Amino acid sequence: MSYEFTLRISQRIRKSPFFDATIRWGASEFTVYNHMMMPFCYESYEADYWKLVSNVTLWDVACERQIEITGPDALQLAEYMTPRDVSKCKIGQCQYALITAEDGGIINDPVLLRLGEQHFWFSLADSDALLYAKGIAQGLGLDVTIKEPDVSPLAIQGPNNLPLMEALFGDWIKQLGFFRFRETELDGIPLIVARSGWSKQGGFELYLRDGMYGDQLWEKIMEVGKPYDLAPASPNPIERIEGGLLSYGSDMTIENNPFELHLSKYCHLDKKADFIGREALLRIKAEGAKRYLVGLEIQGEEFPACENHWPVYRQNLPCGMVTSAIHSPRLKKNIALSVLSAEYAFLGSKLEVDTPVGKMNAKVTSIPFS
Amino acid sequence: MSYEFTLRISQRIRKSPFFDATIRWGASEFTVYNHMMMPFCYESYEADYWKLVSNVTLWDVACERQIEITGPDALQLAEYMTPRDVSKCKIGQCQYALITAEDGGIINDPVLLRLGEQHFWFSLADSDALLYAKGIAQGLGLDVTIKEPDVSPLAIQGPNNLPLMEALFGDWIKQLGFFRFRETELDGIPLIVARSGWSKQGGFELYLRDGMYGDQLWEKIMEVGKPYDLAPASPNPIERIEGGLLSYGSDMTIENNPFELHLSKYCHLDKKADFIGREALLRIKAEGAKRYLVGLEIQGEEFPACENHWPVYRQNLPCGMVTSAIHSPRLKKNIALSVLSAEYAFLGSKLEVDTPVGKMNAKVTSIPFS
Repeated sequence: MSYEFTLRISQRIRKSPFFDATIRWGASEFTVYNHMMMPFCYESYEADYWKLVSNVTLWDVACERQIEITGPDALQLAEYMTPRDVSKCKIGQCQYALITAEDGGIINDPVLLRLGEQHFWFSLADSDALLYAKGIAQGLGLDVTIKEPDVSPLAIQGPNNLPLMEALFGDWIKQLGFFRFRETELDGIPLIVARSGWSKQGGFELYLRDGMYGDQLWEKIMEVGKPYDLAPASPNPIERIEGGLLSYGSDMTIENNPFELHLSKYCHLDKKADFIGREALLRIKAEGAKRYLVGLEIQGEEFPACENHWPVYRQNLPCGMVTSAIHSPRLKKNIALSVLSAEYAFLGSKLEVDTPVGKMNAKVTSIPFS
Repeated sequence: MSYEFTLRISQRIRKSPFFDATIRWGASEFTVYNHMMMPFCYESYEADYWKLVSNVTLWDVACERQIEITGPDALQLAEYMTPRDVSKCKIGQCQYALITAEDGGIINDPVLLRLGEQHFWFSLADSDALLYAKGIAQGLGLDVTIKEPDVSPLAIQGPNNLPLMEALFGDWIKQLGFFRFRETELDGIPLIVARSGWSKQGGFELYLRDGMYGDQLWEKIMEVGKPYDLAPASPNPIERIEGGLLSYGSDMTIENNPFELHLSKYCHLDKKADFIGREALLRIKAEGAKRYLVGLEIQGEEFPACENHWPVYRQNLPCGMVTSAIHSPRLKKNIALSVLSAEYAFLGSKLEVDTPVGKMNAKVTSIPFS
């Protein structure tokens, strides 16, 4: 399906500090994420994919907005928002920290950065979780300051990320562990550099701490990246589905709990600190989830990126939904993420999917796809 | 400025129950609002404008998502979220009820509908205020259920709305007062019909209570509307700026308080019930706001709809921002909404605006524009 319409650009949908640069460098498709324009394609999904998986790419992910929490009760609030044990997070460390509701539903799946004993950033997926933090703090009467700071991440992702990162920051970058970060600068531009990013190719995220320098930072990186064939790109729907990375709003919503999505390893239900959703999550753990996320291979012709939730059937009985789907040019298969009734969510399970090009046979496979 | 790129459609950005219908009826431009596609133009802003101000139009505003609050503490939570005196809101009545933060900043500017003693809908502008409600309820330990129900509004707006509304619903519709609503149905399709809407032309909003009927409802209304020359349209940037209607995210953000925006008449700071932001708002009231929203007439050639916040100067000193701007074909003027330092926010105040086509002279005028 393709539609003929344009996207209205307005002040309501913010431009990132890198917007002008991404236009100059050929961004051809955008999405809206956290009230901000986010480039989602340059050449084509497939061309961008090969650049990402075979070399190194630069992404504007400024739309990963931060909730900054400071003040005497900052740790208490951070703990209260997530089943993750934040007390274990050292200064300079990141944690993948689901934010949960009272019924165990997922409100956001951010990366948490601990900048100080009482200083945190939640680097957000696509929902205004800052309002959740504000509501909780208000209800509990906590002594915290909660704001969205002027912080805009870039990502450098791809197997050949290290030589470029070394050229940019020097030798110490090799020693930075996965999900560790360091406060630093580049030509005087204030940054936090973390070893993280929304791909399975490895790389770093550079949190720009002053939007004024957006253009300068982008161009500096592209310049230093020239000898490394650095290409502008973005989170890639082929690569992330192949790798089983979940997209908040598509594969994961407030209707899903961590057990359904195999994310319970990030939930420390017996952690000391109080948090929202403990009771519900303990109950779900005891009872087992009613549905599970699985990988699907779908038969038939190559199909375009999935725009809707496609119904899934088992012998004509509805049993779930496809939440993301795409053709993998590397695997030469149609691959999908799907949330299915627990009884059909086993490896090899045979199903039918109602796609825009007709009902197709499918079977459950392991994730990541291979 | 015009850019050449497309909008990625994905499951993360929801389609309204009226999406297919709006495409069939020629929607040519969309925006993203509350994680949903919203048609924003059919023929052109100007052509759509004339249809709206001279006759009657049908809008897909399903992106006005609802927070539904029920349970023994529903009234307490609704009161706590807004400086508006909700106890004064009768069942069947709407209130324009700003949701405020602890510092008086505006989190959303919804219309509140009271469906029962302990049953409320906040019909939202563009922010996930549901998460704020959930956070507060959790922090205070309130006994409420908070969810986004399957409710999708349409709007019928324009000076000739009544004959069409009578043809659809019968004689009683004429008696429905402004900001009053009634639960009803059309061909068995469950609706709430309210006399409200985001234009100054008069009309109604039809809250569809089951998304399955989106297409059927749209086509039914267009069919009955044929003799009345009913046209598909949308919230119109020319009409709403002329009328001084503020758009959340553009003219009003969490950085603005109600006093700056002349919305204090909707704030009952001495209301009995507890609410967030009372202290801050009382302080701002006592001290006076530091800046104010004004109307501007901007000299020079007709310019396109404003995409960025344009800086405003008084004799070369920065003194504020244009938050929305457009050319009015009826007034034959460039008109704008702007937030200015209090000392320059007086009628007739002479300023300069940094537009994409150069620095232009401007002067403060009254709102609505005339």
